[in-house]
Amino acid sequence: MLIVKKFGGSSVADKERIMNVARRCIEDYNKGHDVVVVLSAMGKTTDRLLEMAADINPDAKKRELDMLLATGEQTSVALMAMAMDSMGVSAISLNAFQVAMHTTSEYSNAKFKRIDTERIRHELDSRKIVIVTGFQGINKYDDLTTLGRGGSDTTAVALAAALHADACEIYTDVEGVYTADPRVVPNAKKMKEITYDEMLELATLGAKVLHNRSVEMAKKYGVQLVVRSSLTEAEGTVVKEVVKMEQMLISGVAADKNTARIAVIGLKDEPGIAFKVFNLMAAHNISVDVILQSIGRDGTKDISFTVAKTDMKDALNVLEENKDRITAQRIEADDKVAKVSVVGAGMQTNTGVASGMFEALYNVGVNIRMISTSDIRITVLINEEDVDKATRAVHDKFIPD
Amino acid sequence: MLIVKKFGGSSVADKERIMNVARRCIEDYNKGHDVVVVLSAMGKTTDRLLEMAADINPDAKKRELDMLLATGEQTSVALMAMAMDSMGVSAISLNAFQVAMHTTSEYSNAKFKRIDTERIRHELDSRKIVIVTGFQGINKYDDLTTLGRGGSDTTAVALAAALHADACEIYTDVEGVYTADPRVVPNAKKMKEITYDEMLELATLGAKVLHNRSVEMAKKYGVQLVVRSSLTEAEGTVVKEVVKMEQMLISGVAADKNTARIAVIGLKDEPGIAFKVFNLMAAHNISVDVILQSIGRDGTKDISFTVAKTDMKDALNVLEENKDRITAQRIEADDKVAKVSVVGAGMQTNTGVASGMFEALYNVGVNIRMISTSDIRITVLINEEDVDKATRAVHDKFIPD
Repeated sequence: MLIVKKFGGSSVADKERIMNVARRCIEDYNKGHDVVVVLSAMGKTTDRLLEMAADINPDAKKRELDMLLATGEQTSVALMAMAMDSMGVSAISLNAFQVAMHTTSEYSNAKFKRIDTERIRHELDSRKIVIVTGFQGINKYDDLTTLGRGGSDTTAVALAAALHADACEIYTDVEGVYTADPRVVPNAKKMKEITYDEMLELATLGAKVLHNRSVEMAKKYGVQLVVRSSLTEAEGTVVKEVVKMEQMLISGVAADKNTARIAVIGLKDEPGIAFKVFNLMAAHNISVDVILQSIGRDGTKDISFTVAKTDMKDALNVLEENKDRITAQRIEADDKVAKVSVVGAGMQTNTGVASGMFEALYNVGVNIRMISTSDIRITVLINEEDVDKATRAVHDKFIPD
Repeated sequence: MLIVKKFGGSSVADKERIMNVARRCIEDYNKGHDVVVVLSAMGKTTDRLLEMAADINPDAKKRELDMLLATGEQTSVALMAMAMDSMGVSAISLNAFQVAMHTTSEYSNAKFKRIDTERIRHELDSRKIVIVTGFQGINKYDDLTTLGRGGSDTTAVALAAALHADACEIYTDVEGVYTADPRVVPNAKKMKEITYDEMLELATLGAKVLHNRSVEMAKKYGVQLVVRSSLTEAEGTVVKEVVKMEQMLISGVAADKNTARIAVIGLKDEPGIAFKVFNLMAAHNISVDVILQSIGRDGTKDISFTVAKTDMKDALNVLEENKDRITAQRIEADDKVAKVSVVGAGMQTNTGVASGMFEALYNVGVNIRMISTSDIRITVLINEEDVDKATRAVHDKFIPD
């Protein structure tokens, strides 16, 4: 079997954890499997590098940021190879150039285009464990790119797809995907299985277990994922196309505090205004999430939407600068908000989830400020202070004890 | 003009120093010059990385050590590009892959084979300052290699040669090459000029201003070097083929404490024994310096030689293991020794330097344990505790106040 195993930054944060990961990989290797390991940068390395950069140039070019950040994973993989060597197993580290992992040109947010497998296959054939830098690639200029935060998951899935791996295991500091954040909802349960689509909604919505692009790619190439803990032997959660429904409407409740609400007030009620607003956001690389447009009244309308908290300031600036062009009377912003979502493939064939959710929130006195839905998801925007209470109430409503 | 400027680790140790280096490079850029900057890893980064590696695997493979160490310069160059950008100058960082700098395959001690200049020329043509990682290269396997400690000097000279640069400036924390270490000899003087050959002897002998391979390469390709301080505007020392002799016999006095003496005692006085001893050293990559062989007596002879202090243990182990093969009765080692050398092209046409040196040492009561000479150098091995006293005495003897 060819197994791709991905370990995040906290799993390789220090010597002991590196040794622990080395041992776990060697277990599979000793069973005769081919093992490819994908690593993130150690612990808080990426944050530390970003701080160094911001100190020198707060507006550093993304090309140079990627050059800087790429050192983080290169450090991890080299140390991991040394750790495995010290345990008597032949291992080799490879960076984005060496593999090579070709991406698009966009720095800090590149997408994989093509992964060469020749070098990896060659090293596997000589019975080495191959340790690959996550998160990074090279573009057509031979420049280093990064895939954006959490991109190591995507590296693992892309490698699993390119190598036609038999398994792709994503190791993290939790034991799998839960029906809600266990720190907030004590009776949250670990799921045995979840569909790609459900996982996608959960990842996008802040469940923080898997990077959503990795799930999209896994779905596209049919790579079955296992999410499991690097610290315990527990079985984890399998992410795949179709799962047994277990008669549950809802597979999980996700909360996301990384959101801010922008309101553009008093826009002229004429065609093309909404387009102008969101075109501005797109032109400045600001992702817009839940969108709400008021019904026109007195010839004006309001548009509100959510963005990541980190993008709020940018969004505000851009809108203020273009206030006249978009015919806005005033711009408001609020970052004391949060999203709570229920996700479940069962929703598609079942009504009443929305009303059940709203009822649960009403019962604990939580005010709903915006609502957004998809086939398998209902999201509400609420005040940030209510988020734990709301998560527990919705979880209790739908997930049987 | 095309100028290659190399800055060592202490010149880029923190934000302030990085900004300072950026400013100095921009000064030349603003005069219309093309500027290529070669950087080492920041401050003690390389030592810190080596410690991390040693903690995980004291016998780490050199291939993985090089993979690890190469992150140090990549960090420096990315931050430097950001610093220059923040000052409004377009800059780009390039690592060994991107340049590309091809080396031999020997990890941790690679030699340059070929440097592609296309990418650098292209970036210079678009009026960018090009910042290149020192110390590293790539080999035929696409693996990262390093040139050994101080290798960034070699990178600078190799780039200057490949690019046919008009100047190659090596910035350091001293103002140039001195007639002796100014911390030991207060009246040591900065030299205006020195020949490649003199510089080579001084570098090899522990003057620590320039890496000797960089001087060899500069000599080979006729790259004129300037050694100067990154902290002051002082003029520095020019290293070139022929200098005005200024009627000085001796250009400098170098001391080197990084030496240990090994004595192999009671060897059979027959052909091939010395060969066996030094073959063993070569096979274990131990560089041997000053060699002394006693005259045979009673059918036995002794061989003593010096090695770097860090190699002493290895040398002892290897010799003990092969004691019978080399017919040694006993092996002794002493690391409380030091070398003091006088260097000067003037020696070639002048006698009396050796006797003058020995006289100066005798006058301050320093015992000479070994002697070694070349055309332009005389080296003595003395007790380590005498090294400062000896350096001052020899300097006073030859360098006019």
